[in-house]
Amino acid sequence: MVGVKNIEWIGDAATGYLRLLDQTQLPAATVYLDCRTVQAVWDAIKRLTVRGAPAIGIAAAYGCVIGAQRDECEQAAEHLATSRPTGINLFWAIERMKTVRPRTAEALLIEAKKIHAEDAAMCRQIGEHALALVQDVLSRKRSGILTHCNAGALATGGIGTATAPMYLARERGMPVRIYVDETRPLLQGARLTTYELDAAGIDVTLICDGMAAQVMREGKIGMVITGADRIAANGDTANKIGTYNLAVLAQHHDIPFYVAAPSSTFDLAISDGGVIPIEQRAAEEITEGFGRRTAPLDVKTYSPAFDVTPHELIHAIVTERGIIEPVNPEQVRRVLNKR
Amino acid sequence: MVGVKNIEWIGDAATGYLRLLDQTQLPAATVYLDCRTVQAVWDAIKRLTVRGAPAIGIAAAYGCVIGAQRDECEQAAEHLATSRPTGINLFWAIERMKTVRPRTAEALLIEAKKIHAEDAAMCRQIGEHALALVQDVLSRKRSGILTHCNAGALATGGIGTATAPMYLARERGMPVRIYVDETRPLLQGARLTTYELDAAGIDVTLICDGMAAQVMREGKIGMVITGADRIAANGDTANKIGTYNLAVLAQHHDIPFYVAAPSSTFDLAISDGGVIPIEQRAAEEITEGFGRRTAPLDVKTYSPAFDVTPHELIHAIVTERGIIEPVNPEQVRRVLNKR
Repeated sequence: MVGVKNIEWIGDAATGYLRLLDQTQLPAATVYLDCRTVQAVWDAIKRLTVRGAPAIGIAAAYGCVIGAQRDECEQAAEHLATSRPTGINLFWAIERMKTVRPRTAEALLIEAKKIHAEDAAMCRQIGEHALALVQDVLSRKRSGILTHCNAGALATGGIGTATAPMYLARERGMPVRIYVDETRPLLQGARLTTYELDAAGIDVTLICDGMAAQVMREGKIGMVITGADRIAANGDTANKIGTYNLAVLAQHHDIPFYVAAPSSTFDLAISDGGVIPIEQRAAEEITEGFGRRTAPLDVKTYSPAFDVTPHELIHAIVTERGIIEPVNPEQVRRVLNKR
Repeated sequence: MVGVKNIEWIGDAATGYLRLLDQTQLPAATVYLDCRTVQAVWDAIKRLTVRGAPAIGIAAAYGCVIGAQRDECEQAAEHLATSRPTGINLFWAIERMKTVRPRTAEALLIEAKKIHAEDAAMCRQIGEHALALVQDVLSRKRSGILTHCNAGALATGGIGTATAPMYLARERGMPVRIYVDETRPLLQGARLTTYELDAAGIDVTLICDGMAAQVMREGKIGMVITGADRIAANGDTANKIGTYNLAVLAQHHDIPFYVAAPSSTFDLAISDGGVIPIEQRAAEEITEGFGRRTAPLDVKTYSPAFDVTPHELIHAIVTERGIIEPVNPEQVRRVLNKR
């Protein structure tokens, strides 16, 4: 499959380096950044050259290999852990790298590649499970698939989560047509998802967020699928702002709404989405995010970074362990307990 | 009331001129353009210095006065009619100016000011009718009012249509809080509606279109009110893309959805909204509207300029002749037949 290679180790363990697709330059330019020092990896994570929780973890793991090339594995691990404050995958990957023995670049590269491959495999498993849902859609008249934000290859070590069935469908010659919300304010759908799907030869059409209802009404959409930032024990799902919007519209138009996410996204310590705090973002992201001011100076804004979709609106949650359907606490437990 | 003055005749009939707020420079700068020739008025309409169907009609009427200052009233009328292709109000205002006798600048200025004042009065009438709905909202806990695009003072000779009750509430000291969708792709909400409401001292908060559902879910919104481009005999309403989106979300959250529009917006020749053709807009409006490119080159887009909200989702339509509620063919006829 042709597609983006967002993270790649080039060369052998002793002299090799990490090549990252510079996501800050997308979609205007496809530029790769070669990281040959731990600091370069740290900077790349900090400056969002690489983004997406799984992708950050993988990049940090390779960063530890670079540290080991100079016998500075321990310091590299400590330093890389400070690059982003909240990434669970970042800390998890670094901790895992710290357990490797011997602490040679060779042994660490094997482990980093394993972390990378496991993530890729997990994406494929999600894709395989979700493909059944896509096949169901293709058998009907409304054959388009609508997604939001970027839960794609660019954010993972594989073919993404929400995008995984799209890549698999393409591989198997199934004629899927993808619609992508541009996803204001940061436009991850416009900038990233259309980029990576187009690079993989997948039929993709960009719309504005406010057009989703009309596109559904015209019969163009057979299913909606998004990623997730955090899922409560009952299936309530926090994801990029605009996701809940789509879930309500999908219900109104009798279109199934799916979430695709690895089992690690579940936070079983919270019983429902009501307790998830909603981060507020800066006004400038709305008023001057893309090169010129689009609202009066000092206008008040309200900018929640994500929203919570209640489980009642979610047809199914697709994980690498299987499909949670219907979405309720019992089914969440049942599927997550599978291996 | 402090607020925008988008169209103003300065001076007397013999030597006066037309002052227009240059809307192409909003929200970055408040610049007025003084038109002293018919060609200057023509250019202002063509280049969207003045926009909104009623506002264009009023500007053209004043343009006829400028023509009469040089005894070129007839030529002025013919020329101004070619400035924009589809504006009903433009042709209507020019035809009305052509019937004025004697064809002196004095007589024409009286007629132009009358057209202007009638539009302002119509906005106020809509506002008075809609104010009862606002009062009802203020008596409840969810006191915010959400609007979309710009059906405001900037588009009319008065206080707008959807915005009319907001201005009246402000005049009467009622504590309204307005939320405005930025309204992608052309951002009329962000650029124009926040500008004019803020200029009038009205409490206004800008959100992205995809945030509306979350804002509703948080209990911030008591009613949604928008303008209309065209209303069918059964009340189905064509308006800026994203309006139908809001109507569905409002229904889901049990929030009343209102349309405010003059009776001239009704097209009783069409029985329902299904036959209204939906214009497709250029990709560039989505992909490079902010001043720099936000999507890959040559990405496919789908960009309907407006959508049709079925009358079942509309709680009431507020016209200058009264409130149509419930929205059905009988009520539409009943209210439109009033004088």
